[in-house]
Amino acid sequence: MKTFFNVEDIGDLKTALAEAQEVKANRFGFQQLGRNKTLLMIFFNNSLRTRLSTQKAAMNLGMNVIVLDVNAGAWKLETERGVIMDGDKSEHLLEAIPVMGSYCDLIGIRSFAGLTDREFDYAETIVGQFVKYSGRPVFAMETATVHPLQAFADLITIEEHKSVKRPKVVLTWAPHCRALPQAVPNSFAQWMNAADVDFVITHPEGYELDPQFVGKATVEYDQLKAFSGADFIYAKNWSCPGVKNPADYGKILSQDMSWTVDDAHMRLTNNACFMHCLPVRRGLIVTDDVIESPRSLVIPEAANREISAEVVIKRMLESL
Amino acid sequence: MKTFFNVEDIGDLKTALAEAQEVKANRFGFQQLGRNKTLLMIFFNNSLRTRLSTQKAAMNLGMNVIVLDVNAGAWKLETERGVIMDGDKSEHLLEAIPVMGSYCDLIGIRSFAGLTDREFDYAETIVGQFVKYSGRPVFAMETATVHPLQAFADLITIEEHKSVKRPKVVLTWAPHCRALPQAVPNSFAQWMNAADVDFVITHPEGYELDPQFVGKATVEYDQLKAFSGADFIYAKNWSCPGVKNPADYGKILSQDMSWTVDDAHMRLTNNACFMHCLPVRRGLIVTDDVIESPRSLVIPEAANREISAEVVIKRMLESL
Amino acid sequence: MKTFFNVEDIGDLKTALAEAQEVKANRFGFQQLGRNKTLLMIFFNNSLRTRLSTQKAAMNLGMNVIVLDVNAGAWKLETERGVIMDGDKSEHLLEAIPVMGSYCDLIGIRSFAGLTDREFDYAETIVGQFVKYSGRPVFAMETATVHPLQAFADLITIEEHKSVKRPKVVLTWAPHCRALPQAVPNSFAQWMNAADVDFVITHPEGYELDPQFVGKATVEYDQLKAFSGADFIYAKNWSCPGVKNPADYGKILSQDMSWTVDDAHMRLTNNACFMHCLPVRRGLIVTDDVIESPRSLVIPEAANREISAEVVIKRMLESL
Repeated sequence: MKTFFNVEDIGDLKTALAEAQEVKANRFGFQQLGRNKTLLMIFFNNSLRTRLSTQKAAMNLGMNVIVLDVNAGAWKLETERGVIMDGDKSEHLLEAIPVMGSYCDLIGIRSFAGLTDREFDYAETIVGQFVKYSGRPVFAMETATVHPLQAFADLITIEEHKSVKRPKVVLTWAPHCRALPQAVPNSFAQWMNAADVDFVITHPEGYELDPQFVGKATVEYDQLKAFSGADFIYAKNWSCPGVKNPADYGKILSQDMSWTVDDAHMRLTNNACFMHCLPVRRGLIVTDDVIESPRSLVIPEAANREISAEVVIKRMLESL
Repeated sequence: MKTFFNVEDIGDLKTALAEAQEVKANRFGFQQLGRNKTLLMIFFNNSLRTRLSTQKAAMNLGMNVIVLDVNAGAWKLETERGVIMDGDKSEHLLEAIPVMGSYCDLIGIRSFAGLTDREFDYAETIVGQFVKYSGRPVFAMETATVHPLQAFADLITIEEHKSVKRPKVVLTWAPHCRALPQAVPNSFAQWMNAADVDFVITHPEGYELDPQFVGKATVEYDQLKAFSGADFIYAKNWSCPGVKNPADYGKILSQDMSWTVDDAHMRLTNNACFMHCLPVRRGLIVTDDVIESPRSLVIPEAANREISAEVVIKRMLESL
Repeated sequence: MKTFFNVEDIGDLKTALAEAQEVKANRFGFQQLGRNKTLLMIFFNNSLRTRLSTQKAAMNLGMNVIVLDVNAGAWKLETERGVIMDGDKSEHLLEAIPVMGSYCDLIGIRSFAGLTDREFDYAETIVGQFVKYSGRPVFAMETATVHPLQAFADLITIEEHKSVKRPKVVLTWAPHCRALPQAVPNSFAQWMNAADVDFVITHPEGYELDPQFVGKATVEYDQLKAFSGADFIYAKNWSCPGVKNPADYGKILSQDMSWTVDDAHMRLTNNACFMHCLPVRRGLIVTDDVIESPRSLVIPEAANREISAEVVIKRMLESL
C-alpha cells in the first residue's frame, strides 16, 4: 500500500477487518516489520487522538517515530515556478518535500480544509504534493476532505458490535457552534458505501455531501424517519459542503437544535449503538444521557484508532 | 502502585530507598518491565527537569514515551453534566480522559496550582479526574499541591549525604520576586515527616503550610534559631498557603531579604549541606557562595530525579 | 571526540570521508554503541532539516533521543555571579547546564547568531557555556558562527560527485531579502580549506568572511571570473560579517540580483554541480532551471546530513 486516503486503498474490506482483529489480538507481534524504519508524522493542524493513536501504533510495530509540528501559518511553501521568492514563503515544495522524505520511510500527514476555497480543498492540493514529491508512502491523518483512519476504526467498531448480518447505519448531521470540515462524514460515507451495511445519510437541506462520497447511499432529509430501525447512529456536525451552492462552502447553514441526538431520537431506533469520532460537544451533538448510555461506543471507537493505524502502517511497511 | 501523589503511596521508606540505590546502580537492568509499555506524559505547565528526568527514567526502563504538551489556556475540559457545550470548552472530561488512557499504560501529569482558588487547588480537581477516569496508574509530575518525585529525590539525596543516623533537616522559606506554588514545600514536609529525621520548618508569619503537610514537624519562626545545628538546609520560596487567612492565598506576604541563605546563616549550622529543587534565583533564595560551596547538593539532587522517577515507574509497571 | 565545532575536531578528513561511506552503506550497523545512551537535542532556534536528520542519525545508532525546544526569548540564563536575580532570568547557567548534562550522554545544540553584537556572536558565548559546564560531549547543530554538520555533509557530497582529483569549488554569495547568519559559509570555507580542493570565495565588497574562516582561500570579487572552470558552485547568502566595518555587522549591504546563479553563470563553469544547504529562495539565490537541473545536488546534499550526523555521533559514542 503506497497511499491511504480512500477506501479502495485498503482493498477488500473483509480481509482488512480480519487483519484488524489479528493485530488487535497481537499488537506487538509484528515488530520485525518496523525495525529500523522511521515514521514521520507531519501536523499542519493540532491533534490529540490522531497523534497519540498513530504514534502508539507505529511504536507497537517497532518503528522510530518523528513528530513534526508545522505551524501552518508560519510555514508557507512556494508551489509556483518562475517566482522570485522574496515574500513570506521561504522554501519551495520541490526542495522541502523530497528532503523530508529522505529522512524517513513512511509519512503521515494532517492538513485540514481551510473552508474558504472549495476547489483548493477538494483538490487535496497539499497532501497531493507530498504524494507526488516525497518519494515515500503517505497516509492521511485527516486531510482537507478525508479522514480514513477514523472511518476504518469506525468500521472495525461496527463489525465488533453488530448483532445482525447487515445492520442499518445512519450518519446524522447534528448542530454545532463552529464551522467544521467535511472530512469525517466524507470518509464515513465512503467506507459505509463499501461495507456490507444498509447506509442512510440524514441532514438538513443544503448540507449535501459531495456526490463522490454520497455514492449509492440513501439520503433522507427527515431525521426521525432516518433513525427508524437504525442499528448504529453515527452523529457528526459538518459545515456546508457547497455542492448545491458553492458560495455557501464552509458556512453554517443551520443550528437547528431539534437535530441533537437525544433519548427521544434513540427510541426510534432498533436499540442502536451511538457513535461519534470525538471530540464531541455535549448538548449540541448529543445529550449526556445518550453518550453515557451502555449503547454508546465512543470510547471503544476511539481505542480502535490505534488498531486502524496499526493495520495501515503494517501494510505500508510490508510494501516497502 | 496505582497512584503516586503522597508519601504513603510508596510504602515503607527504607525499602524505597534501598530500591533507589539498586536502580541507581543498575538503571538499565529492568528493561523487561517496560517492553511494549507506553508512558504518556501530560504537561499542562512547562517543565525542564521534570520532563527530561522522567522521560529518561522511562526510557531506562525500556518504555515508549509520548509527550503531550497541553496549553492549559487552550484546552478546557467541560466537567459538568447537562451543559450545552457551545462555549470555549470543546471536549468533556468523560470522553477526553478515558481516550488518553486507552493509548497508554501509565500516565504522568503536571498541572500547577492556579493560586487564585484555594479550594479548587487543594481539592486536586484536575489530577483527580485523571485518576478517576483514565483507567491507568497516574503519578504526579507536580500537581497543584504536591511534587512527590522531587521530595523522593530529596530524600534519596539526604540519605546519600547524611553523616549522622538522624540528621536535623530544616525547610526554610526564602524570598522571591514572584508568587510560587506550595507543591514543593508541601511534599518535602510530608516526606520528611515520614522519614527518620529531625524536621524543622521555618518561615515568616503567615506562610504556614497546610496542616496536613506540617504534620508533627517543629515550626520555628526564628530562622536563625532553626538553622542552629542543622545538618541539611532545604531552601524554597512559596506564596501564602492561606491557612490563617484564606484571602491571602497565593499572595506574596514578605520579601524580607534577611531570609536569604548566606554564609552567615550557614555558619550557624552543623556544617550543613545546602539543598534546593531548582530553578533557583541567586541573590534572593541563596548567595553564590553558598550554592557553589562544596556543601551544596543542588546538582546531585537534580540528578536523583531520574532515580526517583525510575523507582516510581518501575513500581507501577510491576503492578500492571 | 568531545566537541564538534570546527574541522579539526573530526581529525583526518580522508578517514572521516571513508567512515561516512561505511556508515552510509550500513547505517544500522552500529547500534550497540548507542544502546542505553541518550542524545539531548537543544534548540534555541527553529529547525527542520537539522532536527530530522540528527534525530534520524541518533536513532540509526540505537540511541534514545530527547528534543528540547527552548524559546530563546523566554529562557534567559543568568551568567554573572553576585547578581540578585529578581528580573527575567529565572535560572543561572551554573545550575541549568550541569542539570541538563546529568540526564543525557551527548548534547547537540542549536543557537543562532543574534547579528547585533559581533563580539558576543563570534565568542560563541552560549555554546561555550554548554561545553564548559555540561560535563558531556557537545556538538553544533548550527551555532552563532559555525554549522559543521552541514559542511561535513557538503564535503561528503563533493567527494561522491567529483570527477577530477582536485576539483575547483566556488563559494558564491547570492542576494536574499533577509539578513542571514554567516555560520554556513564560515564552516564551508573552513572545511574546504582543509579538503583537497581548489577553493575560491566570491562576494561583493564588504561581505568578507572572518579571516579565521577565509584562511588560504582565494577571494575573487568578480563573480563571473570566479565561476570560470568551476566544478562545484556552492551558493549562499550571508549578511555582512563586519570584518572591515564592525558597524555593518549583520546588515544587508547588497541585493544585487546580478549575483543570482542562473544558466548564464553556470555556462561559465566546467559543467559544475550546483549546491545549496537549503532552504533556498528561488529567484534570489538561484533560478528554477539551475536548481532543477540534473547537475543540482541539493537533495542528495540534504540527505547526507543524516550521514554526517551519524559519523559525528558515532565518534562521540566511541569516546564515552
